[in-house]
Amino acid sequence: MTSTFVTLLDFLGTFAFAISGALVAVRHRLDLFGVLVLSFAAATAGGITRDVLLGATPPVALVDWRYLGVSVVAGLVTFYRHRQVSKLRNPVQLSDAVGLALFAVVGASKALTLGLGPVGAVMLGVVTGVGGGILRDVLVAQVPAVLQRELYAVAAMAGAIAFVALREAGIAQAPAAVTGAGLCFAVRWLAIRRGWGLPVAR
Amino acid sequence: MTSTFVTLLDFLGTFAFAISGALVAVRHRLDLFGVLVLSFAAATAGGITRDVLLGATPPVALVDWRYLGVSVVAGLVTFYRHRQVSKLRNPVQLSDAVGLALFAVVGASKALTLGLGPVGAVMLGVVTGVGGGILRDVLVAQVPAVLQRELYAVAAMAGAIAFVALREAGIAQAPAAVTGAGLCFAVRWLAIRRGWGLPVAR
Amino acid sequence: MTSTFVTLLDFLGTFAFAISGALVAVRHRLDLFGVLVLSFAAATAGGITRDVLLGATPPVALVDWRYLGVSVVAGLVTFYRHRQVSKLRNPVQLSDAVGLALFAVVGASKALTLGLGPVGAVMLGVVTGVGGGILRDVLVAQVPAVLQRELYAVAAMAGAIAFVALREAGIAQAPAAVTGAGLCFAVRWLAIRRGWGLPVAR
Repeated sequence: MTSTFVTLLDFLGTFAFAISGALVAVRHRLDLFGVLVLSFAAATAGGITRDVLLGATPPVALVDWRYLGVSVVAGLVTFYRHRQVSKLRNPVQLSDAVGLALFAVVGASKALTLGLGPVGAVMLGVVTGVGGGILRDVLVAQVPAVLQRELYAVAAMAGAIAFVALREAGIAQAPAAVTGAGLCFAVRWLAIRRGWGLPVAR
Repeated sequence: MTSTFVTLLDFLGTFAFAISGALVAVRHRLDLFGVLVLSFAAATAGGITRDVLLGATPPVALVDWRYLGVSVVAGLVTFYRHRQVSKLRNPVQLSDAVGLALFAVVGASKALTLGLGPVGAVMLGVVTGVGGGILRDVLVAQVPAVLQRELYAVAAMAGAIAFVALREAGIAQAPAAVTGAGLCFAVRWLAIRRGWGLPVAR
Repeated sequence: MTSTFVTLLDFLGTFAFAISGALVAVRHRLDLFGVLVLSFAAATAGGITRDVLLGATPPVALVDWRYLGVSVVAGLVTFYRHRQVSKLRNPVQLSDAVGLALFAVVGASKALTLGLGPVGAVMLGVVTGVGGGILRDVLVAQVPAVLQRELYAVAAMAGAIAFVALREAGIAQAPAAVTGAGLCFAVRWLAIRRGWGLPVAR
């Protein structure tokens, strides 16, 4: 039951990240296949990088075909309805924030399970959350927005730190995950709403 | 005998991909060493990524020095004779298409052998075929041409799908490989000749 | 004793590479978190890539938190004092050259230890030395300076070749490492001082 719910949220996050990849691809005038590649890359590059760094090969996104399926559906919808999708700014940002929160906690959790220490687990949580967005932007020769945008990577780090700290303190998986994901989501959502950002050097 | 023939074709593909890397490097005014790095990257990044994703480390391109050797020769020839090489458009495109066809089938085949499912094997066939071209363009800060050019990645996917489908249907390795590589080559070659392309979103 | 000295030099190299990443990030107006990401990426991407290619996962930079610690300190100092750090051109270039020399030899040595042949070991020495600089520049959508700058990658290759050749000839680890690192440092330092460079194709 819980597991089905998490899987559903995981695919919701994949879908949202895939839409962000497809929108960037359409804006850079890639062809249909390029749009699908960027959908899949944005949705799965974070998790694939995490699995490669952990030696957990082949990565789950290549083994479970549903990640490709969800990404392709998101890419096709965005390709043929990109005007409408662009207008859905709130729902897209909302599910993107949900995806970020889930990916950060899932990444940190998998790293802990496979024996990495707390600092490494937090780093892999961040990588899982922001890796897709970084590859998406590198593939269209842009500086990654997640390195510039309102508390994006910071939110992932906050969620991963909260989750790892609670786990290290002996708290069970479920409450630690809910707290970590909730914190990440809250930080990201408030940052969008209130325009919070980090300082830039003068 | 067959195996020697395949090895020959494999090095022909490596040579062609290395030339494409060297031409891009010369055009962006990299120095001699930069040209050799891009030759090797364009020729081997697809296979190296495939091997890393499969956990088949160290990648074959680092273990068998002949991949480096072929890449360096292609890079040196292109560096010192880039005007002439640029004019050889037909032979370069021809061997590039041969390389793409071979890499797509070899990549999918290795993935099946190492236990990946059919969807993952097709994805790794595409990665093996287009990974080198993607890294080549990312290293000179350009949007990868393979995400924009006439049916480039699509040809790799078509070949990989044909190969994997035939293998799953119980067909032997050799006829499946010839069919897959032939289909990939045919799609790519016809696309170049007739200017076929995929739609771009309006 | 020797080992403590090498560890110290290793962290000095990490610190210098992290500063180079932070300076690039500040120049491209990334926010504080982006600066820290580029510090860590520039300092550790070479070693992480080496470890992934060797199958030595998880990479040491994720297991030993001190790499993150050194990178963060370098990033914070550069963020808040980037004018002063920019002026320290000599010390920064000097420790960058020390880092390059150490990373090239350490990378080749680890590859030999894990069973790679001499050609592959030299390649991984170069990857360890220049990988961080490449990722740093790709993340700000620039052509990597190490593919264009005075004998940067060439110096790494010279050091790695010397080290591997001496090891293959039966020389002990310590003198081989000192010779290789010394050669790399000398080539790089002379190239900076005298403006040495490789030819660019006309």
